[in-house]
Amino acid sequence: MIAKKILNIAIIGTGNVATHLAYAIKDSSHKLQWIVTRNKLQAQAFAQKTQTSLTNHIDEVKAVDIVIIAIKDEALQSDYISQLPENAIICHTSGSVPMNVLKNYSKHGIFYPLQTFSKQKKLDFSTVPICLEANSDEVFTKLELLAKDLSDKVYKVNSEQRKALHLAAVFACNFTNLMYDISENLCQESGLDFDILRPLIHETAEKVQFHKPSEVQTGPAARNDKKIIDAHLQLLDQHPDIQNIYKILTQEIIKK
Amino acid sequence: MIAKKILNIAIIGTGNVATHLAYAIKDSSHKLQWIVTRNKLQAQAFAQKTQTSLTNHIDEVKAVDIVIIAIKDEALQSDYISQLPENAIICHTSGSVPMNVLKNYSKHGIFYPLQTFSKQKKLDFSTVPICLEANSDEVFTKLELLAKDLSDKVYKVNSEQRKALHLAAVFACNFTNLMYDISENLCQESGLDFDILRPLIHETAEKVQFHKPSEVQTGPAARNDKKIIDAHLQLLDQHPDIQNIYKILTQEIIKK
Repeated sequence: MIAKKILNIAIIGTGNVATHLAYAIKDSSHKLQWIVTRNKLQAQAFAQKTQTSLTNHIDEVKAVDIVIIAIKDEALQSDYISQLPENAIICHTSGSVPMNVLKNYSKHGIFYPLQTFSKQKKLDFSTVPICLEANSDEVFTKLELLAKDLSDKVYKVNSEQRKALHLAAVFACNFTNLMYDISENLCQESGLDFDILRPLIHETAEKVQFHKPSEVQTGPAARNDKKIIDAHLQLLDQHPDIQNIYKILTQEIIKK
Repeated sequence: MIAKKILNIAIIGTGNVATHLAYAIKDSSHKLQWIVTRNKLQAQAFAQKTQTSLTNHIDEVKAVDIVIIAIKDEALQSDYISQLPENAIICHTSGSVPMNVLKNYSKHGIFYPLQTFSKQKKLDFSTVPICLEANSDEVFTKLELLAKDLSDKVYKVNSEQRKALHLAAVFACNFTNLMYDISENLCQESGLDFDILRPLIHETAEKVQFHKPSEVQTGPAARNDKKIIDAHLQLLDQHPDIQNIYKILTQEIIKK
């Protein structure tokens, strides 16, 4: 039997992903040793809470097993990440940057938690899907050891799949939120409280937790109810952009 | 002091709205006396469970305070609903049919529960917003008495507002579900389990329960990240319709 290895971790970054990840690692059986940030002042409270050493010098980070780079996509391609320990696994958390930006490190991979993180809202990390990729089986096994300690949902996702996933997430999250936003504006214009729609938004998301979205599609477009569709388009006469969005999305549902 | 009046209710219809409403009334302090349906066979189990009399003759319905018509919009405008008791309040549950289709009845109104109901999924009715309208204060007070017994969220919504609300609900529910559907198709094409996206869908809906959607918008369009937007558009080259939807929704987010 092999004793369970405790991994020593460093996180680079103090944004939303880095923060949520740091708290999750702190609650795991592994050890968060370093938080690396260019803005020490901003991260002081955060480091204290997670009882972690704080540095703004990447080259201070030593004797760790895994370095998780959770910084903006642009910064990932810069010199900033060129002085990391040679013997550690170096991985990043981005959905859209290819793994090979880390190819100068002999052990590298992806540690992509697919969720929308916000500083204001606590989140149960065990429900966050973590998508892993690695440049060797050995590296994959170590990343998996950490990921499975943090979350019940760990997936092997290659770089091509990760691109598709990131695109799919734009529809499932960003464009969905735009739909909410448009509905809020329509409420506001008619002097209606957005609270009237919030339970509907909640239930619509709940329904697809156990069904395929195509199985639970409802509404005038799904019924091809021309009378109501025309009435809606007329209501949107003063909003040509929203009217156009209504038309195109209705068309897509009818086509299906 | 006035003793709380127990209202006697009849429901016309056995679809999703009628079914959920019937169960909710059964659990309330009011009395569901009749279920009226053209298809007695289909509704037998349902009537038994709610211990209610079942009839397919509208003119059998007598001595009730409120008749709730929960049938398809088309049927609402037909002769089917012309023989209801004169002295009862007659209301319908549709988001898109004007109140005046009921103008032949001296006491009439709207009892519109704004939620997406499905037969498969139980729902806590106390969280369902009920939008009320009535042709007199007296009628409104009675509808409100029933509504507040069923739900914690009762709103006064006039016919113009109800039209806007129904339109807003198409964005918040039907078009949102289309976004889910597109994301599911993209996953499937890349051999990815839709389960990877389900927590993201859940969390995206949770975020707007306490925030305005515009405050929590994220993603490449919100950052106007042209590099990623272009990469996504290229990924969609084989799907011109979805590519077009991506373009237009991205444009709308950037504009905001």
